[in-house]
Amino acid sequence: MKHIAIIGFGIVGGGIPDVIDSCRDGIINALGEEVNVKYILDLRDFPDSPLGDRVVHDINVIVEDPEIELVCETMGGSHPAYEFSVTCMEHGISVVTSNKEVVANFGDKLLECAKKNAVSYLFEASVGGGIPCLRPFATSLGHEKITGVSGILNGTTNFILTKMKTEGREFADVLAEAQALGYAERDPSADVDGIDAMRKIIILTALATGKLASDKVVYAETIRNITPADIDAAERIGGAVKLIGTYKAVGDKMSVFVCPQIVKNDMALSAVNDVYNAVSVKCDITGDVMFYGRGAGRYPTAGAVVADAVAVLSGAAEVEKNHVFVRDDSAVLPFEDVKFTYYIRTAVSSAAEAVETFKGVFDDVTVLDGSADGVCEFICGKLSKRELDATLPALGDVQSVIRILE
Amino acid sequence: MKHIAIIGFGIVGGGIPDVIDSCRDGIINALGEEVNVKYILDLRDFPDSPLGDRVVHDINVIVEDPEIELVCETMGGSHPAYEFSVTCMEHGISVVTSNKEVVANFGDKLLECAKKNAVSYLFEASVGGGIPCLRPFATSLGHEKITGVSGILNGTTNFILTKMKTEGREFADVLAEAQALGYAERDPSADVDGIDAMRKIIILTALATGKLASDKVVYAETIRNITPADIDAAERIGGAVKLIGTYKAVGDKMSVFVCPQIVKNDMALSAVNDVYNAVSVKCDITGDVMFYGRGAGRYPTAGAVVADAVAVLSGAAEVEKNHVFVRDDSAVLPFEDVKFTYYIRTAVSSAAEAVETFKGVFDDVTVLDGSADGVCEFICGKLSKRELDATLPALGDVQSVIRILE
Repeated sequence: MKHIAIIGFGIVGGGIPDVIDSCRDGIINALGEEVNVKYILDLRDFPDSPLGDRVVHDINVIVEDPEIELVCETMGGSHPAYEFSVTCMEHGISVVTSNKEVVANFGDKLLECAKKNAVSYLFEASVGGGIPCLRPFATSLGHEKITGVSGILNGTTNFILTKMKTEGREFADVLAEAQALGYAERDPSADVDGIDAMRKIIILTALATGKLASDKVVYAETIRNITPADIDAAERIGGAVKLIGTYKAVGDKMSVFVCPQIVKNDMALSAVNDVYNAVSVKCDITGDVMFYGRGAGRYPTAGAVVADAVAVLSGAAEVEKNHVFVRDDSAVLPFEDVKFTYYIRTAVSSAAEAVETFKGVFDDVTVLDGSADGVCEFICGKLSKRELDATLPALGDVQSVIRILE
Repeated sequence: MKHIAIIGFGIVGGGIPDVIDSCRDGIINALGEEVNVKYILDLRDFPDSPLGDRVVHDINVIVEDPEIELVCETMGGSHPAYEFSVTCMEHGISVVTSNKEVVANFGDKLLECAKKNAVSYLFEASVGGGIPCLRPFATSLGHEKITGVSGILNGTTNFILTKMKTEGREFADVLAEAQALGYAERDPSADVDGIDAMRKIIILTALATGKLASDKVVYAETIRNITPADIDAAERIGGAVKLIGTYKAVGDKMSVFVCPQIVKNDMALSAVNDVYNAVSVKCDITGDVMFYGRGAGRYPTAGAVVADAVAVLSGAAEVEKNHVFVRDDSAVLPFEDVKFTYYIRTAVSSAAEAVETFKGVFDDVTVLDGSADGVCEFICGKLSKRELDATLPALGDVQSVIRILE
């Protein structure tokens, strides 16, 4: 019998005992023995739960029990998740987590702590919910150079953008529905302003490069300003608007950012709809690889936590103990200097005159069909944000600027 | 320095030294030392290759050298690949392979041999080229119940079907182009008749269930009969024709087969085009997961062989040593009994009369718009092949029957 503890008994943590129950045979097959949830750490009590008698309120009860081999950290937030994880590892206990915030903020220190104490620190569930996308970085693509990652990393925003497209509705209207369905929080900013996706692209970038960027140097742009007119324009261009997290190798530097982009229909990411997530990886040898699945939800996420637990307890994760992240903000290029192709919609009095103006402003500009007096739509590139901002005064009353994924 | 040998120095095997060279840093990072290709076994000599001096013609030279820790088997075919692999493992040498034929035919015996000799036998490169899709079965989804797999497993047929769709061309015409481009063999039957995809779905099914089915009980249907009219009909139904390998749990039995199917546009598999492959997996806990990438090609495939080699040499594959496949043809349901929804096109003298006939024959039938005197198109289901075959005499001159993926 392997004894573990769960710290944080919310949506994800509360699903872990169910997953362990329903995967009993598979777990026994992998480990040769059962897994027992000996303790649950939470501020609350759970008198009605069949596991109510496992609840403790002091982390020391867990770390001082020599039977505990592994802790599932599903608290969320940086503190005290960080301190509790360190305490566990200093007591020789491996930690597996779904907590993207603590990994994005403290992944370097947590992996260093794991290495020093010869335990595992795994976080598959922190990106892409149940999608097995992090372990393959380590175990299948670990020896290759990874030159880019593009991901649809947030299910809430993908649900909103998909509904806006299929039903022609406004952002605020679909957000309200997502909140009613429990897909979005009452304060939706972590999702819709790209913070959640930013944490995930920071983690993916660190896996690809070994370099952990801080949130201060990673640009994140909201989807609040996307309108039905934008989504309609994307469709006419032959694509769809998606919130994309991006890492790109640029010489020995890198660009890392999150923003809405128009994804063309011939890209595999374009077919990732609703609450699904996908991570597309550009590899030196293997070419483009994509991992797709449910990016959130109690059981997919709890399942990924349990998968990490089984990997640690079976010895399959031994090799991942060598991983380190080095904090290196200086490797991240300023977002203002990253060049894109843009879709731009602007109100002008005369389309014909405007087109003449644009041709003088941009080296490369394509005016879209249907542009008329009143509104003009065009595609221009490739420009950095800095370069684009300098042109804006010449463009009339700009209604929309959306980058196009390449 | 870790010493390995390559047996079979063709397209894939010949790419391995290049991959090892270009991933030198990543390999040293994973293993703490370099990998050296000490021997190459082939019937031919390679006097012009910089590795020409490593060529041997006798497997015993390799297995009797105590420095050799691992062999990459990239010979293809069942014999002597099977015998050579067994000899290696009996000498304590792990084997990694890209050879789907030998794994589909002898995977049970090869894994048993590996287990008996406490070595590894890995075959990531045998399915989906470079896509890391097999290891996640073992290391991330291993404890879950996998209830279904649907895969686009053959790049040649996917290239042909994609071109037929985008360019409105005939099968024979696109096949000739694929042959000229080197995507299809001179004798294309292993690809276009579904044999290659059949071997891959046998391997995926074995990973999902532990049961290795033989090719005698797995139905495979050619794409040679697919016409531009079929592809056009699929488009009107809102989908595309793809060659799909399928495993489905049906109670404690399973159905395993390969056939062209209409994949609706709202399924992630529908966006998998050209030579790309994808494996979609239905998991108990994690839900639907999909792995996507280049399904073939020298470097993606050689890269997957090297990834397996690194996994073995680093110790990351220790846990996969417990895998066994049990041969069990009795678990496979006869294909004749598997129920599908079908698209059917038939020549009739009067569409109105035909529709009346069909309504008498099928419980559930939808006649497509555009059906007219001469040709009638309809969708009916759900019927087994046995049940459908019994209706055929009543349906006029049937031109096409294509299953619809659900």
